[in-house]
Amino acid sequence: MFMRIDKLQAELPAPKRADPNAAAALQELLGGKYGEMSTLGNYMFQSFNFRSKEKLKPFYSLVASITAEELGHVELVSNGVAMLNNGPDKKDGDKGDGGDISGAPFEDMKDIRLAAAFLAGGGGAMPVNSNGQSWNNDFITTTGNVVVDLLHNFHLECGARLHKLRVYETLTDPTGREVCGYLLVRGSVHAHAYALALEKITGVKIKDFLPTPNIDLSKIPECQKYLDEGSHRRLYTFSPNDYKEMAGIWGNGEVALPNDPPGELQVVEGHPDGGKIHQLTGVPSAFTPDYAPEEMFEIASKLYKKSR
Amino acid sequence: MFMRIDKLQAELPAPKRADPNAAAALQELLGGKYGEMSTLGNYMFQSFNFRSKEKLKPFYSLVASITAEELGHVELVSNGVAMLNNGPDKKDGDKGDGGDISGAPFEDMKDIRLAAAFLAGGGGAMPVNSNGQSWNNDFITTTGNVVVDLLHNFHLECGARLHKLRVYETLTDPTGREVCGYLLVRGSVHAHAYALALEKITGVKIKDFLPTPNIDLSKIPECQKYLDEGSHRRLYTFSPNDYKEMAGIWGNGEVALPNDPPGELQVVEGHPDGGKIHQLTGVPSAFTPDYAPEEMFEIASKLYKKSR
Amino acid sequence: MFMRIDKLQAELPAPKRADPNAAAALQELLGGKYGEMSTLGNYMFQSFNFRSKEKLKPFYSLVASITAEELGHVELVSNGVAMLNNGPDKKDGDKGDGGDISGAPFEDMKDIRLAAAFLAGGGGAMPVNSNGQSWNNDFITTTGNVVVDLLHNFHLECGARLHKLRVYETLTDPTGREVCGYLLVRGSVHAHAYALALEKITGVKIKDFLPTPNIDLSKIPECQKYLDEGSHRRLYTFSPNDYKEMAGIWGNGEVALPNDPPGELQVVEGHPDGGKIHQLTGVPSAFTPDYAPEEMFEIASKLYKKSR
Amino acid sequence: MFMRIDKLQAELPAPKRADPNAAAALQELLGGKYGEMSTLGNYMFQSFNFRSKEKLKPFYSLVASITAEELGHVELVSNGVAMLNNGPDKKDGDKGDGGDISGAPFEDMKDIRLAAAFLAGGGGAMPVNSNGQSWNNDFITTTGNVVVDLLHNFHLECGARLHKLRVYETLTDPTGREVCGYLLVRGSVHAHAYALALEKITGVKIKDFLPTPNIDLSKIPECQKYLDEGSHRRLYTFSPNDYKEMAGIWGNGEVALPNDPPGELQVVEGHPDGGKIHQLTGVPSAFTPDYAPEEMFEIASKLYKKSR
Amino acid sequence: MFMRIDKLQAELPAPKRADPNAAAALQELLGGKYGEMSTLGNYMFQSFNFRSKEKLKPFYSLVASITAEELGHVELVSNGVAMLNNGPDKKDGDKGDGGDISGAPFEDMKDIRLAAAFLAGGGGAMPVNSNGQSWNNDFITTTGNVVVDLLHNFHLECGARLHKLRVYETLTDPTGREVCGYLLVRGSVHAHAYALALEKITGVKIKDFLPTPNIDLSKIPECQKYLDEGSHRRLYTFSPNDYKEMAGIWGNGEVALPNDPPGELQVVEGHPDGGKIHQLTGVPSAFTPDYAPEEMFEIASKLYKKSR
Amino acid sequence: MFMRIDKLQAELPAPKRADPNAAAALQELLGGKYGEMSTLGNYMFQSFNFRSKEKLKPFYSLVASITAEELGHVELVSNGVAMLNNGPDKKDGDKGDGGDISGAPFEDMKDIRLAAAFLAGGGGAMPVNSNGQSWNNDFITTTGNVVVDLLHNFHLECGARLHKLRVYETLTDPTGREVCGYLLVRGSVHAHAYALALEKITGVKIKDFLPTPNIDLSKIPECQKYLDEGSHRRLYTFSPNDYKEMAGIWGNGEVALPNDPPGELQVVEGHPDGGKIHQLTGVPSAFTPDYAPEEMFEIASKLYKKSR
Repeated sequence: MFMRIDKLQAELPAPKRADPNAAAALQELLGGKYGEMSTLGNYMFQSFNFRSKEKLKPFYSLVASITAEELGHVELVSNGVAMLNNGPDKKDGDKGDGGDISGAPFEDMKDIRLAAAFLAGGGGAMPVNSNGQSWNNDFITTTGNVVVDLLHNFHLECGARLHKLRVYETLTDPTGREVCGYLLVRGSVHAHAYALALEKITGVKIKDFLPTPNIDLSKIPECQKYLDEGSHRRLYTFSPNDYKEMAGIWGNGEVALPNDPPGELQVVEGHPDGGKIHQLTGVPSAFTPDYAPEEMFEIASKLYKKSR
Repeated sequence: MFMRIDKLQAELPAPKRADPNAAAALQELLGGKYGEMSTLGNYMFQSFNFRSKEKLKPFYSLVASITAEELGHVELVSNGVAMLNNGPDKKDGDKGDGGDISGAPFEDMKDIRLAAAFLAGGGGAMPVNSNGQSWNNDFITTTGNVVVDLLHNFHLECGARLHKLRVYETLTDPTGREVCGYLLVRGSVHAHAYALALEKITGVKIKDFLPTPNIDLSKIPECQKYLDEGSHRRLYTFSPNDYKEMAGIWGNGEVALPNDPPGELQVVEGHPDGGKIHQLTGVPSAFTPDYAPEEMFEIASKLYKKSR
Repeated sequence: MFMRIDKLQAELPAPKRADPNAAAALQELLGGKYGEMSTLGNYMFQSFNFRSKEKLKPFYSLVASITAEELGHVELVSNGVAMLNNGPDKKDGDKGDGGDISGAPFEDMKDIRLAAAFLAGGGGAMPVNSNGQSWNNDFITTTGNVVVDLLHNFHLECGARLHKLRVYETLTDPTGREVCGYLLVRGSVHAHAYALALEKITGVKIKDFLPTPNIDLSKIPECQKYLDEGSHRRLYTFSPNDYKEMAGIWGNGEVALPNDPPGELQVVEGHPDGGKIHQLTGVPSAFTPDYAPEEMFEIASKLYKKSR
Repeated sequence: MFMRIDKLQAELPAPKRADPNAAAALQELLGGKYGEMSTLGNYMFQSFNFRSKEKLKPFYSLVASITAEELGHVELVSNGVAMLNNGPDKKDGDKGDGGDISGAPFEDMKDIRLAAAFLAGGGGAMPVNSNGQSWNNDFITTTGNVVVDLLHNFHLECGARLHKLRVYETLTDPTGREVCGYLLVRGSVHAHAYALALEKITGVKIKDFLPTPNIDLSKIPECQKYLDEGSHRRLYTFSPNDYKEMAGIWGNGEVALPNDPPGELQVVEGHPDGGKIHQLTGVPSAFTPDYAPEEMFEIASKLYKKSR
Repeated sequence: MFMRIDKLQAELPAPKRADPNAAAALQELLGGKYGEMSTLGNYMFQSFNFRSKEKLKPFYSLVASITAEELGHVELVSNGVAMLNNGPDKKDGDKGDGGDISGAPFEDMKDIRLAAAFLAGGGGAMPVNSNGQSWNNDFITTTGNVVVDLLHNFHLECGARLHKLRVYETLTDPTGREVCGYLLVRGSVHAHAYALALEKITGVKIKDFLPTPNIDLSKIPECQKYLDEGSHRRLYTFSPNDYKEMAGIWGNGEVALPNDPPGELQVVEGHPDGGKIHQLTGVPSAFTPDYAPEEMFEIASKLYKKSR
Repeated sequence: MFMRIDKLQAELPAPKRADPNAAAALQELLGGKYGEMSTLGNYMFQSFNFRSKEKLKPFYSLVASITAEELGHVELVSNGVAMLNNGPDKKDGDKGDGGDISGAPFEDMKDIRLAAAFLAGGGGAMPVNSNGQSWNNDFITTTGNVVVDLLHNFHLECGARLHKLRVYETLTDPTGREVCGYLLVRGSVHAHAYALALEKITGVKIKDFLPTPNIDLSKIPECQKYLDEGSHRRLYTFSPNDYKEMAGIWGNGEVALPNDPPGELQVVEGHPDGGKIHQLTGVPSAFTPDYAPEEMFEIASKLYKKSR
């Protein structure tokens, strides 16, 4: 069972301007083979399909709990994509009707890399990669064999780190860069966690692979505040009461990776504070939330009052 | 942000025997066009992409909150699939090594309808439909236009109800039937909720379409206990503190549909009690969780103790 | 622009019994690479994209007109599929409500080869192949180069003939066999027509390839009545007034292929008489056309009277 | 059975210049989830799979007849796409051979959004969306349940209207704008028709949803001539003699929607006059219809004479 | 550049009988995510895209050379699939014509799991998995980062080993079992080789993961002759003169894994002896190689004589 | 069984500059319907599935041998793609670490047509077409019927020639143009060979179709040196000892096509000399072969010395 909290895992700065091609680049981290839909999908189905859950509780808990975090990553990247497509929230930008639409007001949208993002999605995020290809079951490995699945996950997080780095290198807008910065730190935690899980079972010090690719997070300005907070040493249970048993893997005297700020690893019950979700002010001329949304706003306002 | 609780939304009875073709039928409700991955994917991305969230809070809250419930539906169907593939949990079924595998111990698996469910998935659930086709972005509508999206959702829930009914009609095992019974009740709630949302905006009494298909839930024995509890009148916020504003739509004197047990609609803060998650005892000869899992169990047991 | 006539191109005998696996085999001729959706899709888009239509009128007319015939082939196979899934029309089979559905009335549907055909399609035809894979743009060649496109089409018809023969060899039911018999004759006509078109341009006597595969239609009992009628010598314009110019290719003294009954080729204005469309009596317990369709029948009956 | 007439349903103005990205935008209305291939595919297969056709004749006739109209819509958008890729027909543009092709004469084609449209399609239309993704069976709902199918269709037409509006907003060329203008009027008719069909069965005044999105057609200049003609009040049977029974639904005193020019709805036997099909003059250097087409033109000219 | 030798890498015993569902299971090892098309595709494109080939020659050579071996694996599984579909070669089984095909001679083919394997493929192998889904680019990782790519490859070989084991467990026929036995030995060599390559770069003793899954090859009877020959200690260059530099990784005192027969690892120039390719006697009634192939055989015989 | 030689079939000139959109155009010849993955896939699986190999040896040998050549074509185009993405090899371009990556060093990569080529592939080739769509099984025809398969192959080579011509027309860079020039000559050989094979069986002079499209290779400057060498008259066995029997088809007094330089056709045992493979110097800031590859180069250098 899952619960939802109306915040993002990290605070995203507003975009400076609409940049659909930057949004399209960020889609690689949402719907690409090594994107967040893939990390989510793999861990979610692996946790559903996990065998002998009780006997393997620390391992089960690890996969189950990271699944919940990944949901927030999908949310974070999606918000980043929509924000970059939409541009900065404009106060009352959604006021009035959409006006005269007969003068090709969105002519520039036919030249953006993924035109369907506007034509079908109205600038919203969708589970596709940076070339517009859909995420799908091909990207999921859930064999039921614990070692094969964990090894897959470790490789997945290393690959994901590479993809995040490359997307980051294409972006100038603060929104997208912050998404990358945050995910680089958290993805590194997951790679580290799966490495420790594999080490417990096999004895192989696979964590010595990290960081892969071989660049320190200290080189990414957008990662620093998260490192300063010690985010790289923390796994949240993302649960009111469950999944604490992963502390058998993440904790117990295990410490941060050599290239990161030092300290012990710790499991934190619950979730991080997170940041606010942006409004995504609508654009009536694009029919979001509607061509003439004023009446709908009034209705919503009345319903809101009744709900209190 | 999302949290996770280590329970299912409903208690599933153990399967009587392994029945991979029943599991394959249930896959239609997981990865089919009208399955739970689709309801999840639509509402999740619509909630991420929702415009003017504050001004449209009751509508936003409704979609955002149902998203969280759908995650639990995906989990429920997935558990049902894995249970039907696996058969009843056997105490210590995963003990010892996998023994001599040279005598084609899984010969019958080459004749099941979706052989990859065993060969690749080891009997786990995957986001594919009953013919083995992957779920994908084609099944998502997230236009950013509130009316179009809600209308899509209403149609989606009606279609989903039909698919649940047909899957139900093919199943004899209690596990799969319970999955259907529970989802029929909850899916009807969602159809009703989207109908009310659309009625608030347009005035059209679209709830009078329900039930579609035109069969009462009273005819499905597996639905009765949920109706008796009043599940059909309840929407959970599936959140510690958020999404209460959907009470402006679901509540305010609105009542149950005529064919269901009467009473007022109510928003419940938090989540239902739910039921336990089955163990899915491993099958070492199928390499789940491993060919010789004893050592792994011991390691896990030690880690578990350290975690407390 | 297209018109529709409420008849099939050929009269199909009623199926003897429901046989979903036979229907699934027939799907190869609907949504497979060499199926009718492919012949339709290729010729339709080629005709839309045809360059210099006026200067190449006989060639354009040929492709444009065969497109219209292929629509009827898609219809014919689809009807065959639905009939084989449904079984013989039962008088008043759709009367009353669907009754008690709690006893797994469709348990056998979970073991049919393509279970989604029942669960999603209710036994209807869909553009997928015999393995349930969707037809798609990969199967279309529309290069705008006349020789390449015609050569593709010639190869397509030869391949389609092979596929029809193999599907035919798996079927015992008269409905599916008749579909194959009719399509074998008509497909042979199209192969012959494209061969003649290519010969006009290049001088190569490519019609001497035929029949490919090298079996005479005289060996297929279900083809005989169509051969006796001379169907193999006829191309219909499938138009009230257009496309007669294809007579420059199909006609002009050209004669039947050596292995078929002799005679001159001729263009016939209009369309064949065709046969009736079966009712596909609904199955209320499968929610077709509805669980309790009586009221809908009454409404329809009143509307019907008003329409006259 | 289907017939074909060598005209478009509407007269399209010649494009002012080749604009492959505008053609790519228009592809969303051809092969996108809410494009014409989808409306065609849904209604076509629903009409093939329709149960109890006789008892539900007005409903069957409606779906069957609109299928025929949608074929013409697929044709219209396809022509628009090919025209925008090709640019205006040039008299004798296809004369002579393709000349020296060694100087990269199509260098600009490697930077158009969907380069395969040129490289593979030679500028022709293909059933793909604006991102180049193929149309496929995922977009088809044909459950055999009349209410579910009609509800799907109503939602489909509303979604399609939104997509047409957005594509329109990106286009400056008259060809593409005319395609949108015409389809907006006709799509609104179909939404209205399905609304009426659903109202007859359920009593729900679902037509009060319209227009969705909430913008009047009066705001789209390209729609006006069709509204002036009363096109929004007309459904054609698109058949020599069949499908008149849909007058039980569309007609019988039903009137135009409040925001459109007033008047009674009427069923018109047959088809609209329509407009001419453009030549799509070939480009020999692009091998359409051939590198050196003169001889082919001569052959065609002789064959044409023989055909008369 | 590639060369071909008309032998299989291993001698396959003739199948005892046609078993299309066994062939379908084997397809998982051909076109599945962890099948031979995937190992081939990954290493082939990685070798093409390899950066700084000269400076990284031992690593480049390893990937480039294993690519060539994988081609032979694709060939081996494909031959296994076709043999299992076809049954044992029958002397002169392809003599005469296909006879009377009107009696549904292949009725049983409509009930095999992947009917298209017969209807379209005539019993041949195709790059699809055991559920009939196509292999595609989703299964390829070629990032250009050496560590990420090698780690992917190591995980891929471990996953492939699990899939081979499961397919093996479903097969009783000697042909399919031999395919699995051979590939298990060779796949283990590749896992070992990638582990060594990674160890050279990172120092991590990742080879201590092996065997994954944790079952010794000594438990698979069909592996024994290959272990006895020392196949598990050998990498072939599969080249007349190139790729010897991989001896820097596979060799240099490295020895067999602890659970396998002991000995030093060695690079062998060239290729193994291999075994004969089966005839796959045609079935004229299934139109392979033709309905009446005698004339074709005569022609071929004459051409053969001329070629000497 | 296959062998590999560390050379390309033809010498490619270095690119003048990185041109990702040119690389994307070239992808059409790699992963498009008529690209080299398709010719490879078709002939490879046809050769595996070939029936009655001994009795049809000249035909079998032809298909089997051309398969080996196609592997080299896939390699050639892939190298071309990677070279065009990468730009000219820079001596020591891969030296040092990747430096400061925080300044969006690859901002321009978010605007290239297929951004995933950089983000996921790091500029490497992948089996996708020019729109980024994956190659897949839809593009394979392997029916087991010799005439149908050969006819398919003939059509495939003609279509491939058209696609090569169009891609050529978009390219200014010498690398891509050379790829096209070479493949045009070799593809013409294959079309000619399949035409002769078909003529032997059917007597139809299908070679008179050639060249299709109807432009002589003499008009393509990049083809001239290959024509001068007589490449158009040669088929290599691409084997140390096998496949010579194809001389029964290609040879025996058959001569070059009328539009090409005259002379007898001949089978050459072995393979052409070929040209060197470019280094593809890495770009550390793009993490190829690594962010800081120096240590890896040192390790490789030591391993290289040990291997000798």
